[in-house]
Amino acid sequence: MRFERIVSDGIAHHSYFIADGGEAIVIDPRRDVDVYLELARQQGARIRFVCETHRNEDYAIGSTALKALAGAEILHSGAIDFEYGTAVREGDAVKVGSTRLGVLETPGHTDESLSFTLADTSETDDPFAVFTGDALFVGDTGRTDLYGEDEKERLARDLHQSLFEKLLPLGDGVLLFPAHGSGSVCGGDISDRDMSSLGFERLHNAKLEAELDAFVKMKTQEPHLVPPYFRRMEEWNQKGNAPIHARVPVPPPLSPGEVAERVEGGALVIDARLPQAYAGGHIPGSLNIWQGGLSAYLGWMVEHGTPIVLVLPEHASVEAVTRILMRIGYDEVVGYLRGGFESWQNDGRLVGRIGTLDTRALRAKMRAKEVTVLDVRKPSEWEDEAVEGALRIFVGDLPKRLDEVPKDRPVVSMCAVGHRGGIGASVLARHGFEAVYNYLGGAKAWKQEQ
Amino acid sequence: MRFERIVSDGIAHHSYFIADGGEAIVIDPRRDVDVYLELARQQGARIRFVCETHRNEDYAIGSTALKALAGAEILHSGAIDFEYGTAVREGDAVKVGSTRLGVLETPGHTDESLSFTLADTSETDDPFAVFTGDALFVGDTGRTDLYGEDEKERLARDLHQSLFEKLLPLGDGVLLFPAHGSGSVCGGDISDRDMSSLGFERLHNAKLEAELDAFVKMKTQEPHLVPPYFRRMEEWNQKGNAPIHARVPVPPPLSPGEVAERVEGGALVIDARLPQAYAGGHIPGSLNIWQGGLSAYLGWMVEHGTPIVLVLPEHASVEAVTRILMRIGYDEVVGYLRGGFESWQNDGRLVGRIGTLDTRALRAKMRAKEVTVLDVRKPSEWEDEAVEGALRIFVGDLPKRLDEVPKDRPVVSMCAVGHRGGIGASVLARHGFEAVYNYLGGAKAWKQEQ
Amino acid sequence: MRFERIVSDGIAHHSYFIADGGEAIVIDPRRDVDVYLELARQQGARIRFVCETHRNEDYAIGSTALKALAGAEILHSGAIDFEYGTAVREGDAVKVGSTRLGVLETPGHTDESLSFTLADTSETDDPFAVFTGDALFVGDTGRTDLYGEDEKERLARDLHQSLFEKLLPLGDGVLLFPAHGSGSVCGGDISDRDMSSLGFERLHNAKLEAELDAFVKMKTQEPHLVPPYFRRMEEWNQKGNAPIHARVPVPPPLSPGEVAERVEGGALVIDARLPQAYAGGHIPGSLNIWQGGLSAYLGWMVEHGTPIVLVLPEHASVEAVTRILMRIGYDEVVGYLRGGFESWQNDGRLVGRIGTLDTRALRAKMRAKEVTVLDVRKPSEWEDEAVEGALRIFVGDLPKRLDEVPKDRPVVSMCAVGHRGGIGASVLARHGFEAVYNYLGGAKAWKQEQ
Amino acid sequence: MRFERIVSDGIAHHSYFIADGGEAIVIDPRRDVDVYLELARQQGARIRFVCETHRNEDYAIGSTALKALAGAEILHSGAIDFEYGTAVREGDAVKVGSTRLGVLETPGHTDESLSFTLADTSETDDPFAVFTGDALFVGDTGRTDLYGEDEKERLARDLHQSLFEKLLPLGDGVLLFPAHGSGSVCGGDISDRDMSSLGFERLHNAKLEAELDAFVKMKTQEPHLVPPYFRRMEEWNQKGNAPIHARVPVPPPLSPGEVAERVEGGALVIDARLPQAYAGGHIPGSLNIWQGGLSAYLGWMVEHGTPIVLVLPEHASVEAVTRILMRIGYDEVVGYLRGGFESWQNDGRLVGRIGTLDTRALRAKMRAKEVTVLDVRKPSEWEDEAVEGALRIFVGDLPKRLDEVPKDRPVVSMCAVGHRGGIGASVLARHGFEAVYNYLGGAKAWKQEQ
Repeated sequence: MRFERIVSDGIAHHSYFIADGGEAIVIDPRRDVDVYLELARQQGARIRFVCETHRNEDYAIGSTALKALAGAEILHSGAIDFEYGTAVREGDAVKVGSTRLGVLETPGHTDESLSFTLADTSETDDPFAVFTGDALFVGDTGRTDLYGEDEKERLARDLHQSLFEKLLPLGDGVLLFPAHGSGSVCGGDISDRDMSSLGFERLHNAKLEAELDAFVKMKTQEPHLVPPYFRRMEEWNQKGNAPIHARVPVPPPLSPGEVAERVEGGALVIDARLPQAYAGGHIPGSLNIWQGGLSAYLGWMVEHGTPIVLVLPEHASVEAVTRILMRIGYDEVVGYLRGGFESWQNDGRLVGRIGTLDTRALRAKMRAKEVTVLDVRKPSEWEDEAVEGALRIFVGDLPKRLDEVPKDRPVVSMCAVGHRGGIGASVLARHGFEAVYNYLGGAKAWKQEQ
Repeated sequence: MRFERIVSDGIAHHSYFIADGGEAIVIDPRRDVDVYLELARQQGARIRFVCETHRNEDYAIGSTALKALAGAEILHSGAIDFEYGTAVREGDAVKVGSTRLGVLETPGHTDESLSFTLADTSETDDPFAVFTGDALFVGDTGRTDLYGEDEKERLARDLHQSLFEKLLPLGDGVLLFPAHGSGSVCGGDISDRDMSSLGFERLHNAKLEAELDAFVKMKTQEPHLVPPYFRRMEEWNQKGNAPIHARVPVPPPLSPGEVAERVEGGALVIDARLPQAYAGGHIPGSLNIWQGGLSAYLGWMVEHGTPIVLVLPEHASVEAVTRILMRIGYDEVVGYLRGGFESWQNDGRLVGRIGTLDTRALRAKMRAKEVTVLDVRKPSEWEDEAVEGALRIFVGDLPKRLDEVPKDRPVVSMCAVGHRGGIGASVLARHGFEAVYNYLGGAKAWKQEQ
Repeated sequence: MRFERIVSDGIAHHSYFIADGGEAIVIDPRRDVDVYLELARQQGARIRFVCETHRNEDYAIGSTALKALAGAEILHSGAIDFEYGTAVREGDAVKVGSTRLGVLETPGHTDESLSFTLADTSETDDPFAVFTGDALFVGDTGRTDLYGEDEKERLARDLHQSLFEKLLPLGDGVLLFPAHGSGSVCGGDISDRDMSSLGFERLHNAKLEAELDAFVKMKTQEPHLVPPYFRRMEEWNQKGNAPIHARVPVPPPLSPGEVAERVEGGALVIDARLPQAYAGGHIPGSLNIWQGGLSAYLGWMVEHGTPIVLVLPEHASVEAVTRILMRIGYDEVVGYLRGGFESWQNDGRLVGRIGTLDTRALRAKMRAKEVTVLDVRKPSEWEDEAVEGALRIFVGDLPKRLDEVPKDRPVVSMCAVGHRGGIGASVLARHGFEAVYNYLGGAKAWKQEQ
Repeated sequence: MRFERIVSDGIAHHSYFIADGGEAIVIDPRRDVDVYLELARQQGARIRFVCETHRNEDYAIGSTALKALAGAEILHSGAIDFEYGTAVREGDAVKVGSTRLGVLETPGHTDESLSFTLADTSETDDPFAVFTGDALFVGDTGRTDLYGEDEKERLARDLHQSLFEKLLPLGDGVLLFPAHGSGSVCGGDISDRDMSSLGFERLHNAKLEAELDAFVKMKTQEPHLVPPYFRRMEEWNQKGNAPIHARVPVPPPLSPGEVAERVEGGALVIDARLPQAYAGGHIPGSLNIWQGGLSAYLGWMVEHGTPIVLVLPEHASVEAVTRILMRIGYDEVVGYLRGGFESWQNDGRLVGRIGTLDTRALRAKMRAKEVTVLDVRKPSEWEDEAVEGALRIFVGDLPKRLDEVPKDRPVVSMCAVGHRGGIGASVLARHGFEAVYNYLGGAKAWKQEQ
């Protein structure tokens, strides 16, 4: 058996490739499926099955692509109406070589959530591992809020049953392979450590509260956010109608003049550089989301369908950035600025700039009551107060809550370190705020000012 | 015969690898010789000979490394006193397989300059190509000023003879392989096109002035600069005593606190990011030389022996940057800031910032007579006036001419596009100038303001 | 200007990629166009033009793929009726950045043959290089026999005119970039050296006979072979109807049992290992063409449309082998034996074996008059007699001339070194010859027996 | 925490790299340490500690190389007299970032065997994983025979205590990371599956016999082999005096004539191709060990210090093969045959050949009583009888038991599939046996003859 975990950064998505006896299974493939095709090639294996743990909402799944490109059969739950693939139910199993994947129905995160047990039948039919999708993570359990307020409690009860009556009984020694790692929006407390077992989680996972009522109370009170881009993901993943690309499409390079034309025609410029570079100079009107944050924040800021022009970080490949966007359903990249931001400035065009502040400079401005401090972190981070008296608007909500930000004085955008602060500052700048600062280091720097 | 041209960016250095019959020759290897060792491995060849066209001054040659690591014999001129290798003279030749390299003495750039003719003796003994070192470039001829004013004319006469009595007589159809391409400090007008022949140069190279007096006059009037780092290069390349590294040494990662300690201990921070990022935030006191400019400008700014700490561009590898420094003799890199500049800001430390300007903003400040404009381009670029009334100090001279820059008002540093402007601005900032701007786009933007 | 020569081994095909100012031109792209797309990506360039020197016959051109995948415009001659692209004529030119490609009509190899001159107009409009297609090679000139006996002389006269009145007048210093290098079937004497100029060829190319009658006599007497696979290439390249693949299609792995089934269904097994391995054990009935010889010899042996199963060499990737077949129009690869030949033997199946001989062993058998020696080299190689008294049948003709080979005694297949000897031996073995040997080392070993 | 398992094929050795907070730990590094240096570079981490689970005997450890090249501190047990590094004892711990490695003394495989527990102290001080060295494997337990007959039982008792009183009590949920995977000589029944937990092993590992006497009986009856090359490994690993290479040394290419000279001078030719290729033609006197078997079988066949010349498989890199040899202490590779075996045959030299047989052919020869069948499998494989009546000599013992093989008739060498059969056949051939066959497919083919 050859086993590979494929981690997709940004969305912190974990998919799995298992090959045995010339055949392979992929669990929850991402949309850019070249990685699985390449693994299959290296292993001399045909991808026979794609197993979906549930209708994912935070990324576009690559099942139909693997069906089209490799002839795989897609397996998922019958509990909701998928418009593609084959429904399986508890007790079903598929086999490649001597590797057996068995189906467990583990609703709670969603109604159709499945887990898949993994056994090497040449040794024993008892599973040594389980793919839990979004039911159980390392250090966390799946969110239960996606169906709305009214369903939260029911889902939490379902999840408790799935965890304590389906998963944990598999045995302490069973290894845990969830669909997400640390940083995912599908579980806020997922551990940085990827490796675990049911036994270690049983003892150390704070979200594995055995007492039902306490569990339900905890789950229903968890603060979770729902980025608007989930809608396209849910539709694509249920209908199976995401456009299929055999390889990541590479948008064309554009001259500064062509970028200007695209912007006039309605395109949005996404500047994927770090916020310091954006502060030093950028295309006026561009939105700054650093490359590492695109998968988490683009979906809050930009409607699917908006034509996008990219400004790339130094040394970054256009394919790498486009790949990130493809995973979350942004296929409408019309080009990228050839030569990077500098080709814009060298073309003699107007350059946007915003200010940056370190802690000492911020304190001075605060003492002089010269600025509004805008804290764009998530609500769950606010308890850790940091800068006192800050106006608090989560960065994902900022575009529609701009009128709550006073225009009478300069605004200092801040977050935990300065990345989302940069997004916030760019949102303000592109909406006409004239004096905007990004507080470099944010809450982290505030606490350890040196 | 397998033939490879190896281009070393930054110093625009061209070296050549030729393998035939299981043996190989390298012409003018750079100090980081892994590329030649790897080519030899791929070709199943032993590197038998290293041929030096002259004692190079702009980079550290890798001859002794190839001798130590691959057992190669080093061949160079006997006209100066090399402390290693074997002296060859006109008419000598070496052979690998059926490939023959013949020696031509072609002084002028330096007294010991050699060219090497290349023939495939399985076809004919007539050479089909010639390695001209720094005698003849594509679109230019070698500088003759390195021995100082008194020798310029003599060298120019020697070079004329080498060009017209040694090289061109080889025949119009002979291909030209010089030691440098466009961007080298060894010839200011080298063409962007790498490929040429003696015949094409004879017709189109403006520096191939046939009339002797006109040639000498032209050569002796060429403006050339001599970066201080040449001294170590010349010594190493003559004595053959450059320290030998089997692979590029990788300096250790440092925490912000360790960087601060190193700086207190006398280390200089080199920030290799683009100037926009440096403008948005940097370690106070750091010198900003963008990665692509390190090989051309570090040698003006930093004495060999100074301990260096690197701040790397996003996505850049520490090995790539250290490799560049190794080529020009900077072995004293004591570490790099782990996690990039942001780890500094997130550690709650003071952040330096400089301003940036686009053309409209600069014009406004100039109209208000609020600023001094400092043009840091090379003297040869000043004829193309760009911003009128600017104070002109070449960036390489700036550190020792700082007292010529007025401190009474903000200074706007500018160059052709903004890279060297960024170096200049960082020099000013680290020497206490309080209000410093980098004019983004520089002369290029000025001319095509939109 | 960024210039790249892309060499396709086996067919010894040279294509060229030139990027300037964000746009690119490809000369004579091969069918697997990923290499050009990747170069364009690296350069930040859009492929604007594809220039075809002629309707190539020895490989499938990638023009329509680059049109479909990158939006390129295809340019070729109007002298024959291409069913795609745009016709250009002498004096026309296209430009990307400051790079200009000018059209020269240089018939002779074919009626529609074009050459393209290359100039950097930022320096001069005079070209510094020329792409000559199959008109002029390094060390050879294009074959003129493709239209048959009746047209040979006319084409030779045309070619003479193209060479001496169009190409050489461009000037001795002009660099030469032909469509093929050493080993191509498009010119038997092409030099192993890739680099040349018109001037060097004028002096040293033995096929550049200036005297017209002597030239025509020489050309019309050249021995050339026409592999049957040319037919599909000519049709595809004229109609532009080769199926387009965004990436090299990778056939599925097959178990020994599946291979046996495919063979029963009419598939042919191509064993791409070296002949020693084939001799030691192979699938009965398989044809042995070593990987490096597939592009030159598969087209003689196998009709387009025949289903093919591959047996891969150790360490070789299925993609690499499939890529070779794709270039010469063999799209019908139905799979490859998973695990290599050994999975066949380990499955308990019948194994084919042939003998091998060194020179001493061959001499002994010849002395004993025990064997027929079959020399499968090309007619042009027979003058170099090697083994006296050998029966001579070119390997490409062997399948249809099998009845000329005596069955009464063992047959020793031989060539120059043993690769084609291996093909020949496998042809005999799969057609029922029971005692077959491959003479390892062939004519080369014979001459230097130690 | 960044965690990587590094698998060294052939020796089936698993080492581990853990980085946290800019520092890293390596567990049981192999001698070619470039992989760890590269991981450290990628992670921006300094390698602080090397942890040795025991004095390894089956490969040369890279601890002193990592000390020399990266400044790491080496930690091992004090139970034997290591001539380098720092002794640690139960209860000691080292920490990088929040990752803590704790020391457990787990003797049994050897007296000085340690295990290291792994905890992420930012979560809990309880370990989530344990590095067990050669105490506990997935599906097996460490061998206890290395000190000889007299110590076997004592070691087995110690191991039982280590397993049941030290390791299993860590908890069922603790993940298991041993020093070897399937195919290692350090445990004959190691599972093909790399992933496990203490709990899964407790339930399913047949060698985890809880009852002490039964355990001791089982362990002392296990058949294990001790290859002679272990001696140098043990010495190097105890004294820490293995020569240090910053990178894998690449031996020079040799012409056929040079190979012949080396052989006359006492060098042994190791032919690393598959046995079919060796059968079809080889250098007379060469020993055939296929590349994948070098680390397991070279150490039986060749004394350390013997000069070695390599014949490489098609497409294999000399670095890859030399790397394998470096790991098991064979530093005396004096070169490799340039151009592969074919350059030997093409040079007109004598070629060795052996026969191959499939099952049908073998049966025919056996019926005719024409051959001796020699089964070179390990004693533990003989119970699975396969070919009845075969002479049984383990391939590793063959060189010193050659006189047991009858010379009066042809010998058919066989193993499980044909690789070791090929080794055996080459041993016979190089010692003067004239008619030698390799039975392709061996016991596997015999059982499923088709």
